[in-house]
Amino acid sequence: MKTLLLIGIGAGDPEHITVQAINALNRARVLFVLDKGQTTDDLVRLRLEICRRYIREPSYRVVQVSDPKRDSATPSYTQGVEDWHERRAEVFTQLIEDELADGECAAFLLWGEPGLYDSTLRILDRVRANGCSGFDYEVIPGISSVQALAARHRIPLNEIGQPIRITTGRRLVAADLDNVVVMLDAHCAFEAFVDEDIDIYWGAYIGTADEILIAGKLADVCEQIKQARSAARERKGWVMDTYLLRRRPVDRPDSYMKVRS
Amino acid sequence: MKTLLLIGIGAGDPEHITVQAINALNRARVLFVLDKGQTTDDLVRLRLEICRRYIREPSYRVVQVSDPKRDSATPSYTQGVEDWHERRAEVFTQLIEDELADGECAAFLLWGEPGLYDSTLRILDRVRANGCSGFDYEVIPGISSVQALAARHRIPLNEIGQPIRITTGRRLVAADLDNVVVMLDAHCAFEAFVDEDIDIYWGAYIGTADEILIAGKLADVCEQIKQARSAARERKGWVMDTYLLRRRPVDRPDSYMKVRS
Repeated sequence: MKTLLLIGIGAGDPEHITVQAINALNRARVLFVLDKGQTTDDLVRLRLEICRRYIREPSYRVVQVSDPKRDSATPSYTQGVEDWHERRAEVFTQLIEDELADGECAAFLLWGEPGLYDSTLRILDRVRANGCSGFDYEVIPGISSVQALAARHRIPLNEIGQPIRITTGRRLVAADLDNVVVMLDAHCAFEAFVDEDIDIYWGAYIGTADEILIAGKLADVCEQIKQARSAARERKGWVMDTYLLRRRPVDRPDSYMKVRS
Repeated sequence: MKTLLLIGIGAGDPEHITVQAINALNRARVLFVLDKGQTTDDLVRLRLEICRRYIREPSYRVVQVSDPKRDSATPSYTQGVEDWHERRAEVFTQLIEDELADGECAAFLLWGEPGLYDSTLRILDRVRANGCSGFDYEVIPGISSVQALAARHRIPLNEIGQPIRITTGRRLVAADLDNVVVMLDAHCAFEAFVDEDIDIYWGAYIGTADEILIAGKLADVCEQIKQARSAARERKGWVMDTYLLRRRPVDRPDSYMKVRS
């Protein structure tokens, strides 16, 4: 039997890592690092920095592979994701079969929380369904960007006793605006709601040296966020951001922008 | 200026703690431990165990205070919470004024994630509004019971590309049943939906030696969960549980119950 560890390594700050994740990293003989291409070299480097910092016995192997890209031209979103998952399952199967000996333990280093908009668990189900079954796996939770966002802005995610909604940029709708966290938004979906009386708490590269935080009434800071986001993306080649929208007529925060000094 | 650190210490497993939280604990000279009464002595002990394990310089002071109880007899839920927050604000003000010298740093050890159904941030706003202002604070995110639940059951929290809903037992409604995580449920709210074709992934004392996990079609495991929950509560004097409900006509998991061996 082979063992896979799906390790949540936090949202960008190497200190987000848990003791459980450090212990899991130290059990692994092989680390699988999936590389999404040149633009996220930073992210690969940050993962390797985490390994250097926390793995006590430096005899581990790093296997870096190119993660297949999702074809965003596929007309159906679901079909696009299906195809992508299938291609990733092939890559994972190869990793498990070729790079891992029986009895060995390998780790996937996953940004944020493995249960939150991460497809690794689903891909492993598919790998099994495709007939590759000589492995077991464990999941180690990690600090998500949602939590890092709330902590850096020092806000609760929920209103008192109210439900919490987390959604994606493409799913954001007006009915969500009372209180919603948005992830995976490549197109500044908040802009469509600039005339609503809502606040935004926005963050990019949260927990890293490049962190940018902007908060305020959406109408006041919408342009500032778009400019900061596009300038950062230009400078670094990629951007990862998360935000919370909240309708809160009283007790409005003063607008602010913070970058690391 | 005094500094307060709101430290998320994880969902019960001492290894859930992050490096950031350990470093924060080590900055604090005073640890505030709020005790909800005899029934949660276990939880106080677990917090002190975390301190013993991770604080390098054992010269810190522990200040343990009784957390005011919420009066659940108050007819309005919101008013009940308001009153409770006001009494907690008085306790917090006293802690900050009497137990912390200027320039000193104190920590609140908070279960789970400080941004998720935890009122400490709101109480501090109230403390400030009441005129006690000579302090600043930082928030350190922590692994929530929601994440621990997903990790132990090895399931994603979301369906592909779909929103995530987290709610409380008293707010759970039929419209949520496609996919919802329920917290703070003292009354097995899932029972009302036993005739629906949904799965439940339930966990109690997640991450601790007492952990119980039960999953399966709700109709099949509803009674088993109620019995396990009530027996555990009888035995330990308290229970903390969390669950995910999901409508998933295909690909249903086999029922299982797991306890730590």
